[in-house]
Amino acid sequence: MTDDSQQDRPKTPLLDRVNLPSDLKSLSDGELHQLADELRAETISAVSVTGGHLGAGLGVVELTVALHAVFDTPRDKIIWDVGHQCYPHKILTGRRDRIRTLRMEGGLSGFTKRSESPFDPFGAGHSSTSISAGLGFAMARELGGDAGDAIAVIGDGAMSAGMAFEALNHAGDLGKRLFVVLNDNEMSIAPPVGALSRHLTKLYAEGPFQDLKSVAKGAVSFLPSPLQEGARRAKEMLKGMAVGGTLFEALGFSYIGPVDGHDLDQLLPLLRTLKTRASGPVLIHVVTKKGKGYAPAEAAADKGHATARFNVLTGAQAKAKSNAPSYTSVFARALVDQASRDDKIAAVTAAMPDGTGLNLFAERFPRRCFDVGIAEQHAVTFAAGLAAGGMKPFCALYSTFLQRGYDQIVHDVAIQRLPVRFAIDRAGLVGADGATHAGAYDIAFLSNLPGMVVMAAADEADLVHMVATAAAHDEGPIAFRYPRGEGTGVEMPERGIPLEIGKGRMISEGRRVAILSFGTRLSEVLVAREALAARGIEPTIADARFAKPLDRELILRLAREHEALITIEEGALGGFGSHVAQLLLEEGALDGGLKFRQMVLPDTFIDHADAKAMYRDAGMNAADIERKVLEVMGVAQIGERRA
Amino acid sequence: MTDDSQQDRPKTPLLDRVNLPSDLKSLSDGELHQLADELRAETISAVSVTGGHLGAGLGVVELTVALHAVFDTPRDKIIWDVGHQCYPHKILTGRRDRIRTLRMEGGLSGFTKRSESPFDPFGAGHSSTSISAGLGFAMARELGGDAGDAIAVIGDGAMSAGMAFEALNHAGDLGKRLFVVLNDNEMSIAPPVGALSRHLTKLYAEGPFQDLKSVAKGAVSFLPSPLQEGARRAKEMLKGMAVGGTLFEALGFSYIGPVDGHDLDQLLPLLRTLKTRASGPVLIHVVTKKGKGYAPAEAAADKGHATARFNVLTGAQAKAKSNAPSYTSVFARALVDQASRDDKIAAVTAAMPDGTGLNLFAERFPRRCFDVGIAEQHAVTFAAGLAAGGMKPFCALYSTFLQRGYDQIVHDVAIQRLPVRFAIDRAGLVGADGATHAGAYDIAFLSNLPGMVVMAAADEADLVHMVATAAAHDEGPIAFRYPRGEGTGVEMPERGIPLEIGKGRMISEGRRVAILSFGTRLSEVLVAREALAARGIEPTIADARFAKPLDRELILRLAREHEALITIEEGALGGFGSHVAQLLLEEGALDGGLKFRQMVLPDTFIDHADAKAMYRDAGMNAADIERKVLEVMGVAQIGERRA
Repeated sequence: MTDDSQQDRPKTPLLDRVNLPSDLKSLSDGELHQLADELRAETISAVSVTGGHLGAGLGVVELTVALHAVFDTPRDKIIWDVGHQCYPHKILTGRRDRIRTLRMEGGLSGFTKRSESPFDPFGAGHSSTSISAGLGFAMARELGGDAGDAIAVIGDGAMSAGMAFEALNHAGDLGKRLFVVLNDNEMSIAPPVGALSRHLTKLYAEGPFQDLKSVAKGAVSFLPSPLQEGARRAKEMLKGMAVGGTLFEALGFSYIGPVDGHDLDQLLPLLRTLKTRASGPVLIHVVTKKGKGYAPAEAAADKGHATARFNVLTGAQAKAKSNAPSYTSVFARALVDQASRDDKIAAVTAAMPDGTGLNLFAERFPRRCFDVGIAEQHAVTFAAGLAAGGMKPFCALYSTFLQRGYDQIVHDVAIQRLPVRFAIDRAGLVGADGATHAGAYDIAFLSNLPGMVVMAAADEADLVHMVATAAAHDEGPIAFRYPRGEGTGVEMPERGIPLEIGKGRMISEGRRVAILSFGTRLSEVLVAREALAARGIEPTIADARFAKPLDRELILRLAREHEALITIEEGALGGFGSHVAQLLLEEGALDGGLKFRQMVLPDTFIDHADAKAMYRDAGMNAADIERKVLEVMGVAQIGERRA
Repeated sequence: MTDDSQQDRPKTPLLDRVNLPSDLKSLSDGELHQLADELRAETISAVSVTGGHLGAGLGVVELTVALHAVFDTPRDKIIWDVGHQCYPHKILTGRRDRIRTLRMEGGLSGFTKRSESPFDPFGAGHSSTSISAGLGFAMARELGGDAGDAIAVIGDGAMSAGMAFEALNHAGDLGKRLFVVLNDNEMSIAPPVGALSRHLTKLYAEGPFQDLKSVAKGAVSFLPSPLQEGARRAKEMLKGMAVGGTLFEALGFSYIGPVDGHDLDQLLPLLRTLKTRASGPVLIHVVTKKGKGYAPAEAAADKGHATARFNVLTGAQAKAKSNAPSYTSVFARALVDQASRDDKIAAVTAAMPDGTGLNLFAERFPRRCFDVGIAEQHAVTFAAGLAAGGMKPFCALYSTFLQRGYDQIVHDVAIQRLPVRFAIDRAGLVGADGATHAGAYDIAFLSNLPGMVVMAAADEADLVHMVATAAAHDEGPIAFRYPRGEGTGVEMPERGIPLEIGKGRMISEGRRVAILSFGTRLSEVLVAREALAARGIEPTIADARFAKPLDRELILRLAREHEALITIEEGALGGFGSHVAQLLLEEGALDGGLKFRQMVLPDTFIDHADAKAMYRDAGMNAADIERKVLEVMGVAQIGERRA
């Protein structure tokens, strides 16, 4: 374990004088060098206390200093794609005093956030949105809206998403002044995927020198004099322009690069020249090292992408105690088990092999595992194509990112009844990543699709069975969801056994009131049961397992045999509970005075905190369930609304 | 009006001998030329009877013949992107006998459809999915799934979508055999947008000849000898490879082209060589003319994209009689009116300036109108950027295509509460375009987003007011939906007046049962009212106007004052009715015996027919509403279930 108080804060005399970016204007270039060093030390120190995304921020320390030193933020708008890399930016923009609250309840967001600071002109969390947003700012400026430059900073991984391409294509067409900084570190979270990545790599590899015609007509007029000095450096850059810039030039951008993103002597004069002279869209290709300047991060396979709290000197991370395997690892092992007995099973991930556990699958079955990059639209339809070709694809995505493939789920999978299996990780509230990463909507947007099967695991043992169910279900699409974090510690089956489609399970028979749970709130329901038992109330408890098709028999029986029925799910309105309501209404089961209630995520975006606290804010913990039962039974209650 | 019986069928002696593509194998190249001519004539003749998408099919007649002559369908899989161009393909693949039922109830789909034919390996309707699907087939083949080649045929407009880029990027990375035919006609529905389009145009424009190094290492080894003959043609093609192929080569494809897509003497030998020798992903750049070979189509601005029935000799289209302006045109005029008084209003469309009516806006305010191309993800976030920059953007999309921007609505618009105005056209069932184009889900997927305002117009006058409401609402996102087709003929207001947010309107006070309508089913409700009046039943009728925020006062009053409450909406479960249900449940309004029912689109994908027939199949016409009222009131009914 690390302890903030035991770790010396770094000495940062220059940084101590910087409260806002305007304070950088009075610093010399030499002082900016020192400031960058101090900013790096402060970033490391802060993340050692809070945990969070370290490597991305360390990779852009010099870029952050250079952009704020040259441009006039917040009038000029820096849009950090995804936002993982924004911690140094936050330190420089008036938030240093709260930087050690990053990702904590009530503290700074781990991403840029408009409501947090005027220096965050556009919030993020999901990838590849920055060019679109930047172009919006640029065109608003042209039409008399807010003045100032727009600068999108986007990683090479994020650039592989179709959305970034759409934005480049449109920006190149419009031809207005816009800066796109391609932060090329050859890493997104995992090494980036795709031909584009290989193309970028060529830009700074050795190779035959190409003709200079495209340079002459291209970006060379922007070149500041310091960059023209030094034959080797210039040659490197010009080679890049001739060889690799073509892709961006084909899309209408002036291409500059590659530039060493850790060398302020390159960055500052380049940005100053561009600020003065650029007229159309410019792509600045900056090469950086993720984790730069912190040896333990540089040495890590993921370049210190995300970290727990750690000891600055040793890099040793605080280990969270673990009682049960994570849902992610349970899914991964169950899928490997299925695939070991069925060579038609394939797996698809969108740049999250580690996050989804598919790295395990890739090790065992490399030919059958596809990491498509940050490209959820393609991931879904590619999986549909695999299914149409006779394979059994599991498309493993986080709930929040599955939103990117929604139309493809409707149009390519559901309408065609193709047996794509959706493994939906990070379902429900996710903790420190906050509102942008909440998996709140998948139950609703999947359950009203004809022919879709929608399951949620109540515990890690059921997840194993649901993987088996999905593997066996070849008649149409099927989805199963499970949360971030560790399981409940239940005994694990040796092997998954396919569940009967559309059948739930009784957990315990009680009287008067029934609670029908869909997903992992079941454990909170069981806690609530204990508290209710102390009051002599014994609810019936059932696990629905399926939001679609519903277990009509179970639900109508619960309705018949109880005075009240409460559903609970880790999702927004319109999902499981709404489908149960419709069944009850159509069957007339509510005409006779049955009290029906549904507990769903509230109609607010819930800020980052630990998951338990987020569910407290959502009113969905055990105490809230207990209160709902008492309320529906008309039992007087004493005490606070919140647990 | 045209009349099928009066129009001579074309003479097609060769086509008459072709029932399946295998019949092409015995034809000489010369006979294939004749077959193409006959196929073109038959396509024109068929569409003159049915109406539908003409120009796209005429542009690929030779390509269709060549692909089926060279490849072995259905073992080899031709995937037509979007599917507008598939009519000639249908004629050649055993469906000629039904080709004059295109887009009619019970007839052939206007798109490819897996359930219709084994020669349709992957259905479509939405654009830019074909490369992803084709890559899925290709990788399934590599893994022991279905054998055969995958050939994706995609237009230059569709290529601008990010999804196509994602698929190219992944395919280039995997390096397996896959054919992508880029059908470049410089048109999608509207002229294509973006820098990519300009890039492609360069490929066959005059210009300085470039060095041939990239040609030598590129696709030149594939070149069949007929293509190497003829200095001019070869020079054209090689120039294309050197200048323009770089974009695709950078993504890992071998690039071949441009090829004259109407010249079977180019297409046949090229495809034969590729079929024999290609090993990795190949992009074949084919230049075609939309509407080729039919003068009235070639002369039309949209190249005969979609047409009503027409006279083959004159090209004169059957004019539908029109009683009221279309919702689309009402929206467009209302937006122009708002924009004439507010220079912050801007408009965004994704390749549908005509379909959304924004062509009107573009004529008046060209600088404020943005056609981003087929790029809905970018469209939404670009609009969010415009809003963050102080503009008032209206993002006008069809409901079904808005699904493509779902994550961006959640992540970039709703979470940030940016005042993007979503004008949602083609809401509800849309007629001949069928299930792939149904606007069934937007109410559900928008109404559970915190801070979103969701409206539906009940008639064209209310649509004018909703445009004004959206223009005035600057506190957060707002959406309004309206259907395809013409309005109800109500008197139009001179100018739109902003509605009070979250307030519905009473239409008529009645007794015992209340019907709360959201959207244009109101007119069917009013028809049902007449029928019910004949039985002495007088329902209260209200127009909700808002699915979010709900008019709590109105709804609770209806609940209090009636024995039964029925909601109706042109959307799937999880939307308006589900939100009303939740309000009633939370308020305990259903505990006392109020009968609540919601009428929503059923849990099936509804096949193409005219919209009225589709709503009949959905059980949502006046007769269905009448029946629902009688049912909930316990009145015995006589007669059929369907109107």
